[in-house]
Amino acid sequence: MTGNTAADQSPPFSPLACGLPVPPAPLPAPDALARALLLVSPSLETGLVREVERIAGRPAQTLPEGPPPSGEPYLCVGGSLPGALRTDRLLWFHSVTAGTDRLLGAGPWPASALLTRTVGRMGERMAQYVLGWVLAECQAVPEFTAQHARAHWEQLPTELIAGQTAVIYGTGRIGAAVGRLLGACGIRTVGVARTARSGPAPGSARTVPGFDRVIGAAEDAEVLGGARWVVSTLPLTDATAGFFGPARFAAVRGATFVNVGRGATVDLAALESALADGRVRRAVLDVLAKEPAAPEDPVWRLPRTVVTSHSSGITAEEDVVGDFTAAWEAVTAGRRPELTVDVGRGY
Amino acid sequence: MTGNTAADQSPPFSPLACGLPVPPAPLPAPDALARALLLVSPSLETGLVREVERIAGRPAQTLPEGPPPSGEPYLCVGGSLPGALRTDRLLWFHSVTAGTDRLLGAGPWPASALLTRTVGRMGERMAQYVLGWVLAECQAVPEFTAQHARAHWEQLPTELIAGQTAVIYGTGRIGAAVGRLLGACGIRTVGVARTARSGPAPGSARTVPGFDRVIGAAEDAEVLGGARWVVSTLPLTDATAGFFGPARFAAVRGATFVNVGRGATVDLAALESALADGRVRRAVLDVLAKEPAAPEDPVWRLPRTVVTSHSSGITAEEDVVGDFTAAWEAVTAGRRPELTVDVGRGY
Repeated sequence: MTGNTAADQSPPFSPLACGLPVPPAPLPAPDALARALLLVSPSLETGLVREVERIAGRPAQTLPEGPPPSGEPYLCVGGSLPGALRTDRLLWFHSVTAGTDRLLGAGPWPASALLTRTVGRMGERMAQYVLGWVLAECQAVPEFTAQHARAHWEQLPTELIAGQTAVIYGTGRIGAAVGRLLGACGIRTVGVARTARSGPAPGSARTVPGFDRVIGAAEDAEVLGGARWVVSTLPLTDATAGFFGPARFAAVRGATFVNVGRGATVDLAALESALADGRVRRAVLDVLAKEPAAPEDPVWRLPRTVVTSHSSGITAEEDVVGDFTAAWEAVTAGRRPELTVDVGRGY
Repeated sequence: MTGNTAADQSPPFSPLACGLPVPPAPLPAPDALARALLLVSPSLETGLVREVERIAGRPAQTLPEGPPPSGEPYLCVGGSLPGALRTDRLLWFHSVTAGTDRLLGAGPWPASALLTRTVGRMGERMAQYVLGWVLAECQAVPEFTAQHARAHWEQLPTELIAGQTAVIYGTGRIGAAVGRLLGACGIRTVGVARTARSGPAPGSARTVPGFDRVIGAAEDAEVLGGARWVVSTLPLTDATAGFFGPARFAAVRGATFVNVGRGATVDLAALESALADGRVRRAVLDVLAKEPAAPEDPVWRLPRTVVTSHSSGITAEEDVVGDFTAAWEAVTAGRRPELTVDVGRGY
């Protein structure tokens, strides 16, 4: 596993604050790519570095903290990028994780640099995480485990999920994978698209694979009241920071909140009051604004909550290899890789 | 819930020991059914008794421990039947549970009495139980719950279920429901039919809805070695008592064993050695031969095992109402109810 544990404490990336769209970076020119140095993050394991060298057809150097090692252009594979390497000689950065908010938030992004990311089987992993915790609650897995430890025999009520409603924030690859899996188990799925930018105007129900129905974020109050599950897969951008705040939780009526997106999309004080007054039944938080959580972090003391240490969307080496291979093949064929990050949008 | 907690300690029912097939009971004659007394088990809750009275169109009496209250024929709705009521005046017994092994094992069954049972949404319930515990293991739900209690942040490995193989014993309604749900989540499902009686000869792969493949019990060694999950939905009959013994567990190579069938189908000593040598990775036991398990029962100390107090197949009142209604409509229309128990086979 390449993991995903580093602190997620940077402020959200705000390219839109200036109100200007960010033009897409050009694809690296073939001659520049041919002579570019390959730099890899020191966190990458040796086996993965060997694979990256094989794909790029050149030896790798460890990404330095200081300025780039020569006057040549360079391409990077890794998780973070020091400021000294944010130059116009950066042709391409392939992120070994799906979330690029920390990378983009840590400094200005060179306009000429292509940014691609690793998704791999992350949608499938996150979907199984969500379904696993949904069923664990309905089947009283923690309660039976505790009863077993006490050698105590007692029937506990369980809950059938068929016919329940899940409201899933984020209708991209990950949200859709969550929707598909929950839907396969009989749950009604409502996808919430953060903005209407990529689809019809808010108010017009759209058909998106993976969801029974998709609505805009402005219309979610009407569905939150009937939801048994509220699941977030949202990335962190300036538009999603603190997205789950008092107003949104006020519309919830007994749903369990599951966050596999980014921690800073949640106002923890608002979540705490919603848990306290029962609007939020339980919370399953894979991600926090401050990671890792220290033992004294108050998040551990939220009622009816479990924190799972950012484990839902582990990126495996095979994911990085697969997605970097596909991106390499696209770039060298002159096509824009499918997993190109829209730097203006932030994902 | 009408529950399902009573002791499951009776010896397995063995009508086949004499080698004679048991002829199907006749449907109750309309005139006898019209004047029959309605007797209900004292364990039935008042609301359910009212519903049963409504369906049968007559007042109910509590089922006596002694002889039947008059010379009239009678029909019963409940969970058990005292010996004094096992007479040729018993027209029909509708079981409020799916398993009828205790009922049939507690005394000879009157040849003239129709026996029907309640399945309701039990297949769906058991399927969600199985998937819930499968995903709980893959998503490390108990481990994360324990980490949370210690305010400890640590990524734990998780496991994707897609492409894994589950061997599911029992290809009836419940087994098929388990197969369908696991299959919907990408697990390969092999159903094991206990005998070839109800299908083609062993060795011929059959297509049964809910399974990728169905084999006979004699051929299971070849699939057990590749299984990640071994799930039993088997009823208790003379053919299934101790079914999961040393020979069967010897073929297992690291699968988790989940039992939602009947406890006495498992040889616990054989399971214990298979857990000790790692052939069985974990065990999830909803049912035991002796229920409820006392605190000193050694079953609580089996390694990597959880016992869940016979909670997977709860029968809800609505299940009894639905299945008794359907049976009543069938009988009064002169049709054999779909949920008729084959007394010779035991389920």
